[in-house]
Amino acid sequence: MDYAATTPVDPRVLEAMKPYFLKKYGNSMSLHAWGREAKEALENSRETVASLMNADQEEVIFLGSGTEGSNMVLKGTAFANRKKGKHIIVSSIEHHCVLESARWLERQGFEITYLPVDKYGLVDLNALENAIKKDTILVSVMHANNEIGTIEPVEEIGKLCREKGIYFYSDAAQSYGKIPVDVEKMNVDLLMVDAHKIYGPKGTGALFIRKGTKIEPLLHGGGHEFGLRSSTVNVASIVGFAKAVEIQKKEMNSDANKQTKFRDRLIKEILKIEDSHLNGHPTKRLPNNAHFWFAYIEGESLITQLDMHGIAASTGSACSSESLEPSHVLLAIGLKPQEAHGSLRLTTGKYTTKKDVDYVLEILPKAVKRLREISPFKGGWE
Amino acid sequence: MDYAATTPVDPRVLEAMKPYFLKKYGNSMSLHAWGREAKEALENSRETVASLMNADQEEVIFLGSGTEGSNMVLKGTAFANRKKGKHIIVSSIEHHCVLESARWLERQGFEITYLPVDKYGLVDLNALENAIKKDTILVSVMHANNEIGTIEPVEEIGKLCREKGIYFYSDAAQSYGKIPVDVEKMNVDLLMVDAHKIYGPKGTGALFIRKGTKIEPLLHGGGHEFGLRSSTVNVASIVGFAKAVEIQKKEMNSDANKQTKFRDRLIKEILKIEDSHLNGHPTKRLPNNAHFWFAYIEGESLITQLDMHGIAASTGSACSSESLEPSHVLLAIGLKPQEAHGSLRLTTGKYTTKKDVDYVLEILPKAVKRLREISPFKGGWE
Repeated sequence: MDYAATTPVDPRVLEAMKPYFLKKYGNSMSLHAWGREAKEALENSRETVASLMNADQEEVIFLGSGTEGSNMVLKGTAFANRKKGKHIIVSSIEHHCVLESARWLERQGFEITYLPVDKYGLVDLNALENAIKKDTILVSVMHANNEIGTIEPVEEIGKLCREKGIYFYSDAAQSYGKIPVDVEKMNVDLLMVDAHKIYGPKGTGALFIRKGTKIEPLLHGGGHEFGLRSSTVNVASIVGFAKAVEIQKKEMNSDANKQTKFRDRLIKEILKIEDSHLNGHPTKRLPNNAHFWFAYIEGESLITQLDMHGIAASTGSACSSESLEPSHVLLAIGLKPQEAHGSLRLTTGKYTTKKDVDYVLEILPKAVKRLREISPFKGGWE
Repeated sequence: MDYAATTPVDPRVLEAMKPYFLKKYGNSMSLHAWGREAKEALENSRETVASLMNADQEEVIFLGSGTEGSNMVLKGTAFANRKKGKHIIVSSIEHHCVLESARWLERQGFEITYLPVDKYGLVDLNALENAIKKDTILVSVMHANNEIGTIEPVEEIGKLCREKGIYFYSDAAQSYGKIPVDVEKMNVDLLMVDAHKIYGPKGTGALFIRKGTKIEPLLHGGGHEFGLRSSTVNVASIVGFAKAVEIQKKEMNSDANKQTKFRDRLIKEILKIEDSHLNGHPTKRLPNNAHFWFAYIEGESLITQLDMHGIAASTGSACSSESLEPSHVLLAIGLKPQEAHGSLRLTTGKYTTKKDVDYVLEILPKAVKRLREISPFKGGWE
């Protein structure tokens, strides 16, 4: 129930990767046969990854991670366009990699507007239009939120940005390979995708950079990836990523249908628990995301209870689950800190079975009940 | 003959990685059993990688690549220490990832001194001492050069930097796991190592950061790696890296002895070719590196000739072999551009056999001869 944090590698992906560890291990920059073999695998993979976002091959570079992509976009467009302006707009529910890059830029003299969202986590287009200034250079709104699963109105946001001549970046780490991602329809200039969220290996991702977009590299060096991302190319992982994309291309729709049924059943049944609440939008949400808050309990204790029964789940986002701060996403949709602390994210995946869902629905209500019995808040927060 | 560009993954390394792709795939930040399992593997790997450089476990973070490490060190120390000063010294034969990061910093208002080297590629300690100014914050000199294999006097450089209160960074991508690397003896504050140079996977490396060193992250986000390097931790690759280190720990010495014999034989025999010259130091060089220039021929044509005979070799460094510019390293040691263009790097590895060396010594002189016969420069460069 924690597929949004990361996924296992599909065995077919590992099979595709193996030869690139042992035999076809060349450096894609080398001039000899091993180098050419690596280069060819790289370019074939680029074509595959680009095709599932309707992008041209030359507009996609590979990354070491999704986080790297967001850092590159925020810092790279800021530094490359600072003569035009120093104002950047980010939604207040962006992933930490966007928000922390934005905060770093603030310390370098850039101005950041953190755009509020409604109770479902949706960015308000009017608020965005009002936030845009003459010197705005970039708007960053994720495609689908990693915690509450809300899918943002990216097409309209992109359209507005384009009218105003502002770059639009969307972090599609949670959506790519799960729901349709189309850089043309979405009107994005920059879009990041991640391999380990769709049964590919950790440590690789890709960034769409629309032709003509002014951006500086984050990693300087030997000039790999059209001079935009230096580093010996991680061919094995990239081949694995492409294999994962190829599989999702075929299985995405049927998989999404399956997940949606699981999700809707989880939501319907879990909301029967007293004082339980759905977070995120009832329909505009990822097919595999069900997110709740339960009054009077601590999410961390709930995770521990579920873990004791062999169920993996998350409270807050995986990337900050060690932190004691309440989730910035949940605060942004209007939850009080004590409400946010009682949150639970259940995210299913392609290996989830009906039996798994049944089991969660058997264990979870008992766990909530037990925790409430021993809760110091039992009977209210006063 | 191109092990310096990259190496195959040792089958034992791949075996160690496999479970972390398929079963033990957790996110190291997750609170449940899968997360704890990942976290434990991460910390065990950190201990292994740290131990082969005589560092404390808490002083080592994992990277997405060596290039990322150099970018982080150059930019991260520059931004964190700019109140102290804006002057950085780098050797003129550093890897592109250091030099290009330095050039980017120059564009941000930092002052860079490019330290000359002697004809062997050795940094002159007097020149370094003279280059140091009141506002110098960092000195970057690699442990062993990736092209010509020269091993720098890092202990003395580190000692001098420490006396002056300046951070010392050394890129040990080519030396770690091949010759002893000891952060205490070397007097370094920052040291980068890379997995794919020692039979580990591409896409991971590590950075030693001495306790108390002021440095900013390059990748901002969820706060992984002690808050210094955000990004979902690539546990499988890190486990593979640690396995590679464990193997090198045992096999490094015997392996270095074998390589040294191959190297010395290659050098002795190849210098018998008319108008051939050794680049780099005769003895202060990596055990697996033999580097030459041949008058009147193009290195690229030589690579092609060797490739036709199934021999992988390199001219210039692997990372820039697509470039038409002569190698900055060879120019720095005093070669003329046309001399640098006739260069050849042969680097052996643990799977190199005596038969391989024999074969190269059979093919190479013929290839040089053939190219000279058709060379427009035949008989001289005038």
